[in-house]
Amino acid sequence: MELQILLTENKRKYKQIYEQIRQDILKKKLPAHTQLPAKRRLAEQLNVSIMTVQIAYEQLKSEGYIYSVERGGYFVSEVDEDFYFEEPKFLNFKQTNVTHRYINFKNGQVDAEVFPYKTWNRLYKKQLNERDSNHPWQGMNNLRVEIAKYLQQARGLSVEPEQIYLFSGFQQQFMNLCLFFNQSAIGIEDPGFYRANAVCDQLKLQSYGIPIDEEGCTVPTENIKLLYTTPAHQYPTGTVMSIGRRTELLRWADKNDAYIIEDDYDSEFRYKGSPIPTLSHLDIKEKTIYFGTFSKTLLPSLRMSYLVIPSHLQLDFEAFNTNQKATVSAIDQQVLAHFMSEGFYTSHIAKMRTLYRMKRECLITNIKNQLGEEYKIKGDSAGLHIILELREGINETKAIELAKKNGVEIDAVSTMYQCNKPTNKVMIGYGAPSMEDIQRGAGLLASVWHDFLN
Amino acid sequence: MELQILLTENKRKYKQIYEQIRQDILKKKLPAHTQLPAKRRLAEQLNVSIMTVQIAYEQLKSEGYIYSVERGGYFVSEVDEDFYFEEPKFLNFKQTNVTHRYINFKNGQVDAEVFPYKTWNRLYKKQLNERDSNHPWQGMNNLRVEIAKYLQQARGLSVEPEQIYLFSGFQQQFMNLCLFFNQSAIGIEDPGFYRANAVCDQLKLQSYGIPIDEEGCTVPTENIKLLYTTPAHQYPTGTVMSIGRRTELLRWADKNDAYIIEDDYDSEFRYKGSPIPTLSHLDIKEKTIYFGTFSKTLLPSLRMSYLVIPSHLQLDFEAFNTNQKATVSAIDQQVLAHFMSEGFYTSHIAKMRTLYRMKRECLITNIKNQLGEEYKIKGDSAGLHIILELREGINETKAIELAKKNGVEIDAVSTMYQCNKPTNKVMIGYGAPSMEDIQRGAGLLASVWHDFLN
Repeated sequence: MELQILLTENKRKYKQIYEQIRQDILKKKLPAHTQLPAKRRLAEQLNVSIMTVQIAYEQLKSEGYIYSVERGGYFVSEVDEDFYFEEPKFLNFKQTNVTHRYINFKNGQVDAEVFPYKTWNRLYKKQLNERDSNHPWQGMNNLRVEIAKYLQQARGLSVEPEQIYLFSGFQQQFMNLCLFFNQSAIGIEDPGFYRANAVCDQLKLQSYGIPIDEEGCTVPTENIKLLYTTPAHQYPTGTVMSIGRRTELLRWADKNDAYIIEDDYDSEFRYKGSPIPTLSHLDIKEKTIYFGTFSKTLLPSLRMSYLVIPSHLQLDFEAFNTNQKATVSAIDQQVLAHFMSEGFYTSHIAKMRTLYRMKRECLITNIKNQLGEEYKIKGDSAGLHIILELREGINETKAIELAKKNGVEIDAVSTMYQCNKPTNKVMIGYGAPSMEDIQRGAGLLASVWHDFLN
Repeated sequence: MELQILLTENKRKYKQIYEQIRQDILKKKLPAHTQLPAKRRLAEQLNVSIMTVQIAYEQLKSEGYIYSVERGGYFVSEVDEDFYFEEPKFLNFKQTNVTHRYINFKNGQVDAEVFPYKTWNRLYKKQLNERDSNHPWQGMNNLRVEIAKYLQQARGLSVEPEQIYLFSGFQQQFMNLCLFFNQSAIGIEDPGFYRANAVCDQLKLQSYGIPIDEEGCTVPTENIKLLYTTPAHQYPTGTVMSIGRRTELLRWADKNDAYIIEDDYDSEFRYKGSPIPTLSHLDIKEKTIYFGTFSKTLLPSLRMSYLVIPSHLQLDFEAFNTNQKATVSAIDQQVLAHFMSEGFYTSHIAKMRTLYRMKRECLITNIKNQLGEEYKIKGDSAGLHIILELREGINETKAIELAKKNGVEIDAVSTMYQCNKPTNKVMIGYGAPSMEDIQRGAGLLASVWHDFLN
């Protein structure tokens, strides 16, 4: 096959080749497993050196967009469903495992070792020389433009940059919104994100626990005007909300003149089945407020998140926040904006999806092999954590206590329930630990829990 | 005179000489205008090269701790009262004047051109290589240690790092505290910081305006348990709270079992009279919550501030904020911690104090010369803004409108009043504009206002 590649003068040739092939792959113009032209042929076609093509191909490969077969050439990967990656690329990641004696299975954590610190710092340095005194509370304009582009490309959302508001994390964001809606009560999934309940407590706001079933958050029966939910990967159960339930919830919101907060906190990491559209995407009546974060895709320690407000609420939201000031460093915002516009963000996510997929498989295999089938794995189709149903005879408290005694940190699940707290589940986060730690950790859990049961 | 300098092996010699002389100057062991020993003599005494002494002296000079006289040697400056500085040091500051057609007299802004971006970036880069996964919501430990040291040295406050809590700006901080105290009403200076009132509005919290007189915030007569005040440089009037009033307020708090929020937002820049101790310093009964910020001393765009909670409230405050997450990037916190521990923070403040003092004098002189004595200058003893009382015949609205038309941006004062809004005052911030802009700006104001009056 012949690639349609147009080279212009103003930009590095290999970058143009890389970028145009990448776009064709993302737009599915190049279907999975299509063979790319041989380097020499493409070089002749474009009248560039073989080395130029070589660099472009290697870049695409290192980012998982294409894969190579020994003496067979280069082929397109199954993008956003699967990424093939050369093992070595991962094995040579800095293994400066942050010196904790513990194996860290705690949830909400990422692999900070793989973050492109060099690139980030280069952009940071560049930013310090291109200063901009204008620092709107809503967030820097160019960053909001990049986020809007990303939401379009990755989540199929068409939002205006003006609808996007930056915050320094979930709590600021959620609190601001609760105050804006000025409701006496709010619905929060039960089990649900405990920080959402914490904000309600601080605001002395009544929160109703909305039960979860196998299709996700159920339709509220209480008289509430605001519902907090996590459709893509319910926190903590990991349930993916069914399309049916999504439309039901939207109908409920419309009928009851209510709004839905859709927290899309880790949807970038989806491993099973085809991506499910966001609520916001299905929402023609503009009843959803979309929550996004960079805590899972980049680093939680950056403290950057954002919300997307429906356009018809914008004026009121602006009015409510008159005199508001930004809560995220202008420099950090600019760095992120450039990180996104130069394509590092999407390639980092691609890379991390592959890494986390490998960690997830490593965890699941080791649980099956070392702990055995009596331990059931739930909610593993997306995100960075799974729910483990314990074998009969050992409960959450005991399991966590034994794990900790033996140097493995895992999280409780019961604490995320308002009622009917289960006692037979634990949460295992696989974002932070290395493959080695995951294997060792599963082994340790198996031995201590087994010893206890016998 | 002979300097008592002790050199150890572990540290660069010039740094030790610089540091010990600096300490002697700050501790007033070396009174103002004392002549320092000749370089050669000190070099012999310490058995180091003349160049080593030279570097130390030049460093001290560039930071305004000492000044030199042609062929007369080096002398101690009048520290924290006055700084002498070599003109050239300033004139060669990068003049990349952020391209605004406007002369920026808006308040709450700093001179971002003088910020040590190189140093900051060096520390940032270093930080990226020394990662730390531990990110307590309260703020990084080493940063809180540095802040505690700084408060001790600069404000005479002896606080434990454990009492310090980092926030991403005033509003987050103030809101969290209001929610913690869970009061139905709160006292805010009138005129006062409008962002404080904005937070109360968002929280649907009643706020009483507490009148200001020439001694600062008056003693509240309303039944309130929380009072927000700015003793060092009342915002916006610039009044410095008298010692008498400070003790009255503390007595009031003690008697009424109330607490006082002392916002010390720009006390670092004090130009007249001897430094006045903070309320917190006088407060033996631990009735004050101290607010500090890096927005004035470094950059507002960094979004970093902190509060100091009385030790007896700590447990409750911690309990209230269980599940709270940090709101400031861990990397930025680490960078700031090193920026402070390596002495850049204090030297930057010293440098900025001198620069702002010069800008302030430039502004005052130009107002006197170009606008004339009929325009009264108020609240100029500290901070980065003054209040200008307008000449009869022209009011705030007209003055601002005319200024804007002619490319000069100044702020209103009436908007900061809850009642008895004055119409004859404007606010002029001199943090951002260059000396040249200050001069030109004053000239422009003089001509347009004069034309209007005739």
